[in-house]
Amino acid sequence: MNVYELVAKQKQQLIDIRRYLHMHPELSFQEQNTAKYIQAFYDELGVPYRANVGGNGVVATITGALPGKTVALRADFDALPIQDEKDVPYKSTIPGVMHACGHDGHTATLLIVGKILWQLRDELRGTYVLIHQHAEELDPGGAKSMIEDGCLDGVDVIFGTHLSSNHDVGHIGYRVGPMMAACDSFDITIQGRGGHGAHPHQTKDAVVIGSQLVLNLQQLVSRRVSPIESAVLSIGGFVADNASNVIADTAKLSGTIRTFTEETRELMEQEFYRVLEGTMIAHDASYTIDFIKGYPAVVNHEHETLFVRDVAKQLDCVTNAFEMVPTMGGEDFAYYLQHVPGTFFYTGAYPGYDVPHHHPMFDIDERGMEVAAAMLLQAAIEYQSAS
Amino acid sequence: MNVYELVAKQKQQLIDIRRYLHMHPELSFQEQNTAKYIQAFYDELGVPYRANVGGNGVVATITGALPGKTVALRADFDALPIQDEKDVPYKSTIPGVMHACGHDGHTATLLIVGKILWQLRDELRGTYVLIHQHAEELDPGGAKSMIEDGCLDGVDVIFGTHLSSNHDVGHIGYRVGPMMAACDSFDITIQGRGGHGAHPHQTKDAVVIGSQLVLNLQQLVSRRVSPIESAVLSIGGFVADNASNVIADTAKLSGTIRTFTEETRELMEQEFYRVLEGTMIAHDASYTIDFIKGYPAVVNHEHETLFVRDVAKQLDCVTNAFEMVPTMGGEDFAYYLQHVPGTFFYTGAYPGYDVPHHHPMFDIDERGMEVAAAMLLQAAIEYQSAS
Amino acid sequence: MNVYELVAKQKQQLIDIRRYLHMHPELSFQEQNTAKYIQAFYDELGVPYRANVGGNGVVATITGALPGKTVALRADFDALPIQDEKDVPYKSTIPGVMHACGHDGHTATLLIVGKILWQLRDELRGTYVLIHQHAEELDPGGAKSMIEDGCLDGVDVIFGTHLSSNHDVGHIGYRVGPMMAACDSFDITIQGRGGHGAHPHQTKDAVVIGSQLVLNLQQLVSRRVSPIESAVLSIGGFVADNASNVIADTAKLSGTIRTFTEETRELMEQEFYRVLEGTMIAHDASYTIDFIKGYPAVVNHEHETLFVRDVAKQLDCVTNAFEMVPTMGGEDFAYYLQHVPGTFFYTGAYPGYDVPHHHPMFDIDERGMEVAAAMLLQAAIEYQSAS
Amino acid sequence: MNVYELVAKQKQQLIDIRRYLHMHPELSFQEQNTAKYIQAFYDELGVPYRANVGGNGVVATITGALPGKTVALRADFDALPIQDEKDVPYKSTIPGVMHACGHDGHTATLLIVGKILWQLRDELRGTYVLIHQHAEELDPGGAKSMIEDGCLDGVDVIFGTHLSSNHDVGHIGYRVGPMMAACDSFDITIQGRGGHGAHPHQTKDAVVIGSQLVLNLQQLVSRRVSPIESAVLSIGGFVADNASNVIADTAKLSGTIRTFTEETRELMEQEFYRVLEGTMIAHDASYTIDFIKGYPAVVNHEHETLFVRDVAKQLDCVTNAFEMVPTMGGEDFAYYLQHVPGTFFYTGAYPGYDVPHHHPMFDIDERGMEVAAAMLLQAAIEYQSAS
Repeated sequence: MNVYELVAKQKQQLIDIRRYLHMHPELSFQEQNTAKYIQAFYDELGVPYRANVGGNGVVATITGALPGKTVALRADFDALPIQDEKDVPYKSTIPGVMHACGHDGHTATLLIVGKILWQLRDELRGTYVLIHQHAEELDPGGAKSMIEDGCLDGVDVIFGTHLSSNHDVGHIGYRVGPMMAACDSFDITIQGRGGHGAHPHQTKDAVVIGSQLVLNLQQLVSRRVSPIESAVLSIGGFVADNASNVIADTAKLSGTIRTFTEETRELMEQEFYRVLEGTMIAHDASYTIDFIKGYPAVVNHEHETLFVRDVAKQLDCVTNAFEMVPTMGGEDFAYYLQHVPGTFFYTGAYPGYDVPHHHPMFDIDERGMEVAAAMLLQAAIEYQSAS
Repeated sequence: MNVYELVAKQKQQLIDIRRYLHMHPELSFQEQNTAKYIQAFYDELGVPYRANVGGNGVVATITGALPGKTVALRADFDALPIQDEKDVPYKSTIPGVMHACGHDGHTATLLIVGKILWQLRDELRGTYVLIHQHAEELDPGGAKSMIEDGCLDGVDVIFGTHLSSNHDVGHIGYRVGPMMAACDSFDITIQGRGGHGAHPHQTKDAVVIGSQLVLNLQQLVSRRVSPIESAVLSIGGFVADNASNVIADTAKLSGTIRTFTEETRELMEQEFYRVLEGTMIAHDASYTIDFIKGYPAVVNHEHETLFVRDVAKQLDCVTNAFEMVPTMGGEDFAYYLQHVPGTFFYTGAYPGYDVPHHHPMFDIDERGMEVAAAMLLQAAIEYQSAS
Repeated sequence: MNVYELVAKQKQQLIDIRRYLHMHPELSFQEQNTAKYIQAFYDELGVPYRANVGGNGVVATITGALPGKTVALRADFDALPIQDEKDVPYKSTIPGVMHACGHDGHTATLLIVGKILWQLRDELRGTYVLIHQHAEELDPGGAKSMIEDGCLDGVDVIFGTHLSSNHDVGHIGYRVGPMMAACDSFDITIQGRGGHGAHPHQTKDAVVIGSQLVLNLQQLVSRRVSPIESAVLSIGGFVADNASNVIADTAKLSGTIRTFTEETRELMEQEFYRVLEGTMIAHDASYTIDFIKGYPAVVNHEHETLFVRDVAKQLDCVTNAFEMVPTMGGEDFAYYLQHVPGTFFYTGAYPGYDVPHHHPMFDIDERGMEVAAAMLLQAAIEYQSAS
Repeated sequence: MNVYELVAKQKQQLIDIRRYLHMHPELSFQEQNTAKYIQAFYDELGVPYRANVGGNGVVATITGALPGKTVALRADFDALPIQDEKDVPYKSTIPGVMHACGHDGHTATLLIVGKILWQLRDELRGTYVLIHQHAEELDPGGAKSMIEDGCLDGVDVIFGTHLSSNHDVGHIGYRVGPMMAACDSFDITIQGRGGHGAHPHQTKDAVVIGSQLVLNLQQLVSRRVSPIESAVLSIGGFVADNASNVIADTAKLSGTIRTFTEETRELMEQEFYRVLEGTMIAHDASYTIDFIKGYPAVVNHEHETLFVRDVAKQLDCVTNAFEMVPTMGGEDFAYYLQHVPGTFFYTGAYPGYDVPHHHPMFDIDERGMEVAAAMLLQAAIEYQSAS
């Protein structure tokens, strides 16, 4: 069976679905219409599914004629609060909302994979669970609640992929172990004491306190984490919006902490609080904090990852299967891997010009979806025979 | 002649004027109605005046029957962008605008002083120039343009006072030499390079750069200015309003620099730029800056200040004439003192509860205006006989 | 009586004494020979004195024939651990020890003043207490123990002067109120945890902790003390003497804090500890500290200071009596002024080339001693008639 | 052939040699006696060698009877400036000098390996180059000059090992790619302008400048290097040894920079200079610097490393062959790997108590030498048959 040829026959529908979704993006946790669209697709085929799984999630199940393992495939379907600035016919029709990360492509890919599996079901061994996940972009994400709502029940293995605008079509990136980071975030309000710029001694200058905190926190990465480990602490927001002659009463800082292991994650959190406390004491200031534990690290299982690598090497449509360097970005696919074996891989979809994900000009080469579909199909079907 | 008794007879009108102005405040450079109110007052009395002096300024002139010196008295009349939160019958009727610094009282005082001088004109020596100045609160201020428009022409001496909510009624604060600070300000935009919080190495983190700048600038006061000199550098605004996982592309900082001497003022500016440049070089970042040279320091002339002190000691309504410590606040009265001899003094008007100037609850004890009026009258008249 | 003429007659001896002392300097608390030299001088004249007052101090007393007030005059006589690098016949003969602050001149001056008072004793009113103080240069100083040992008993007023290489001969600097600073100092040992430079995460880097402390402490002056007040915090010593690849286990920091008022002094100490504590907490480090409360501020009494100013204006040998700006340097003359009224003034002795005190090339114009002697004599004698 | 049994027969001599060397340590570049000891050992056997190779290096060559590849084995033999504080019969007899890193064990191991190869030479294929290297501990190291002096001429592959007090006997640690760091170092003298602690405005405070530099440099690791890459910058020395009231004229800082790739190494150096320059400009200070490019990273070749792993798995004396995490420590074995294929691995020699290398209590379990010898023998001989 040449899965790529099966996919190629669905090429036009693959593109049509993706473009429809691209034109009708919905923000995380608000993806009702997208969920209905997915349901309608399966309704038309007659594929059984469960809707409203852990929120807007949809889980379709295709059972082969022969006994076998239960393989889950996952695609996410939420969009981002970004204004689409591309000049293309399939440009987003929703102001300020855009599929700027390729989830439209993920969803189109998985629907077509589902269609093909459905066509093949009489010859197939095992069961195929197609997890259409909402809300990957926004903490706490959809994966967690979908798992709690049973989407992994009975599942033996899970595979997922991300289309990548940074890699050429035909390239597949895999990695054993930590591949994407745990992402925690925080919002701090430093409470100093405001006053007139001419009288600093009557104040506790929240701009100075915040600046000190920003610099002190640099030492978490430079001094307190092993240089062999990876860790990032970035403070993106610093807001004390005062007139030039008004000393700040408060300053609001928000940032992100990214790590690959639970040990380093805990160390960073512990030292973060240590520096925060000490800095406040040095200034006799106080603070409130909202510390949000985000997705854990995506840690790929060795056996399944090498299996996917081998699948990639077999497929003609894959010209390069390479070991990825880990990225400090996050993904709630991480939660699935805490429950069942599996792996998450990258599928090249370089659009012909350099543009990062989450950018107003983001796009993909739609042929990347064909490769992604072939990879998922081949992996799912071949896994039935894998040791 | 007992000037305080003359003032006491005008007490009700003094209060009525002040309350009318308090209810109808106008922002700096927008004080057309207040200017018309002042003109109407003089029109009714028949006092000659010149309107639109250097903007909204009004200058009335009262010439005594006998030859003598020309004495200028100055009151400012603009209000502030603050919401009046007092629960009083004379509360501001203009949302978000308030006489929160006592300029309503200054103006009422000077109008009543003008009325009394006009009444006395047949007995008086010399000429009295009543400078009603607009726009003290907002750089570049009204004093400079009024001087350029001739308000000090022929003037031998100038006196001015500020009602103070921090000092009791009956108290007069004087000081020879520097009394209020030169006030420069700046708005900086630091241009780094933004990016994703997970990838700091691809960015130039404007929050880190700005934080470093804030801390580096502390050393201007702690290390580069003589400890015997006074200087303040405060950064009131620090704005990099990003999501927690977005590294700042730019950060906007704004602040104020306050000094008492031109030498220290120049030193602070020079070292400010040195630190700014070095910090940007260390981060390979760039910046744009708007550095605004504000009012110079208020430097009172010795002879005129001691004269006013002596005037204060004569008046029964003054219970305490004290030497003030200088304040780092600014005043464009400074410009007048660069052209003619004179002095600026404080007149107590403690409202019965602790509240700073520029506060939504600011108020004055209106009896302070009577003392102010008596001081200005006595100083103006007696200066004719002063050596 | 023309005191300057009386002094001029003693000019050669004045110089001889000063040069002898300059050639034979002794360190603070080790001035036995200098003390003996002073005693021998008084022995020869027959002036009564008390030796070993509070240590090496010598106090001579001359009682006039007529009743009057008791006036104390003070000169200090210790030298500094500095190598004399001048090429003069009276160069120090003691390696590494030098009169680099003019105390030799102070002592010669007071001895000659004593000689003249002794000559005049039959005509004089009142009593003259000549305080030869040891150990001004080294904390805790000699003044405190000499006062405890009774040197001020019965004294009505005290005068002292410092020869100044920064001011011309004939110039006298006076100042009412704070004139020299309170000087506290500290030695901190930061206890981190050492380790290999390649493994920062196993350490608590005492160099980083110390550096942070140095910078954090800048904010005491820039933010926590009123800009109208003067305060200095300088850290002179920072020692963590390790190989380049060894992370510091400890760092030793030492510094000085200088202020003019007890209120600011206490504020600086309080905030110093606050910053120290907070910084240590932020790094989970510990410290030991030796905080040494040094001399208080020299605060001149108003009446006595203006009296000395008037004395200066009478004397022909004084060409300029000027109001000094305060200096952040310290003097244990401060202690005397806490017990009796008095004043400390500067007497110009510019040596003809620019050199600061405590410098290996320090010298004085010896004519400055004549002016100093005339000032002290005139002040002491005239004070008997002062109101 | 069971190499471990061959080694076991030499056990006593192995220990004797190691203990003799332990008792007679010599500092880097001063190892004349150790070199003579090695030469005497080979002289006694009749093994040909070349002395004074690139300094104190000794290179013995054993040629097997059969043609084959040329395999180099390397051991270093210098000691450290550390006082031996162990209470053992073989304690160092040289005050302040100690084999605190196991080089005595390396040398004993390689001598015994040489003895065995010499015994086996009639059966052996290929040539064995035994590189006894001086001066590993001290930059610029002995490896570089030995290579320049021809020690690798004709060599096909090189193997080396380090005894490790952190790993159990029987454990072998291998790693493909970067395993030990490139180590650069620097000595900076910051030239400020000294002065009295009371007058900071007349100075450029070198302690403050140095502190700022230390903190600014933290951002190289926290912001400018990819979090996926490893880098360390540690400043071990900070010396400004002044009295508490003297502001520092100069401060001396020394530190180390460690990286795994040339790209990161160059980035760190470039950003180091950027921060240094910017910091100096901000303070109008100058500096001198000695920047020492040290050893490059030890980057193990894949084929040879996996070969050694397989060798380890064959040997009974090896109970655990594990993939090492890289270490930020340095080794001039790096130079050999820039010229010929090869690998550097760790051999466990945990002494029974926890003690790091370079510690006064450092020791090894001498059985670790037997494992090391077996590994080197087996690798060298088997490599002749390797593909």
